[in-house]
Amino acid sequence: MDTIPAELHHLITEPHIGYLGTIRPDGGVQVNPMWFRANDGALEFTHTTTREKYRNLQANPAMSLCVTDPQAPYRYVELRGRLSGIEPDPTGRFYQVLAARYGKRDEPAPADAADRVILVMSVERVSCK
Amino acid sequence: MDTIPAELHHLITEPHIGYLGTIRPDGGVQVNPMWFRANDGALEFTHTTTREKYRNLQANPAMSLCVTDPQAPYRYVELRGRLSGIEPDPTGRFYQVLAARYGKRDEPAPADAADRVILVMSVERVSCK
Repeated sequence: MDTIPAELHHLITEPHIGYLGTIRPDGGVQVNPMWFRANDGALEFTHTTTREKYRNLQANPAMSLCVTDPQAPYRYVELRGRLSGIEPDPTGRFYQVLAARYGKRDEPAPADAADRVILVMSVERVSCK
Repeated sequence: MDTIPAELHHLITEPHIGYLGTIRPDGGVQVNPMWFRANDGALEFTHTTTREKYRNLQANPAMSLCVTDPQAPYRYVELRGRLSGIEPDPTGRFYQVLAARYGKRDEPAPADAADRVILVMSVERVSCK
């Protein structure tokens, strides 16, 4: 993450929604809003094994996350990379950690906790404006 | 656009920033914030022939646009489709039309007007939450 300019670093540290791009098995693109957290140079997302993005990433690990501050939407950072790991989160604990980061404290474990995983994305390229 | 639920139609008619996904020649994904306008069932963007997204779309016409209201970011609409046309905009007039839609009235023609084009995206699939 060292190549994010200092004046845009807040886009990653503050709890802004990121827009995650993945590639679908049919060759199309998919973009979804996501909670995320930067951790030791990687990005972490809470997800489940039953959703389309999980299926997309099984076939193609390419990922890109674009983040803006809605109060100043004409500057952005885009982090491109790929899926580098999937960690089980069977109690939904990481979901709760991200929920708290986004202002939902004391969020209960999600109903789909048994299917929860942490997607870990390695960042290979930083683009910004 | 008929399949966008009525309660989410404002995401397209109000001037919210969209996050556009394209596929890069190296197989990676790219996501960027974009102004857009819905017109007769298609989406229109202002762009130039000198940028990466233009190059991406020349090689692969897949496009996806995700839109949320920053005031209520947990509902979104995602419009997936492909590039269906490129129209020249050599005076930058369409740039000015979109600028006005996004609250920048009386915006001068852009410095790169000679390279300006209108990207037209046909919408093939609507996904929302």
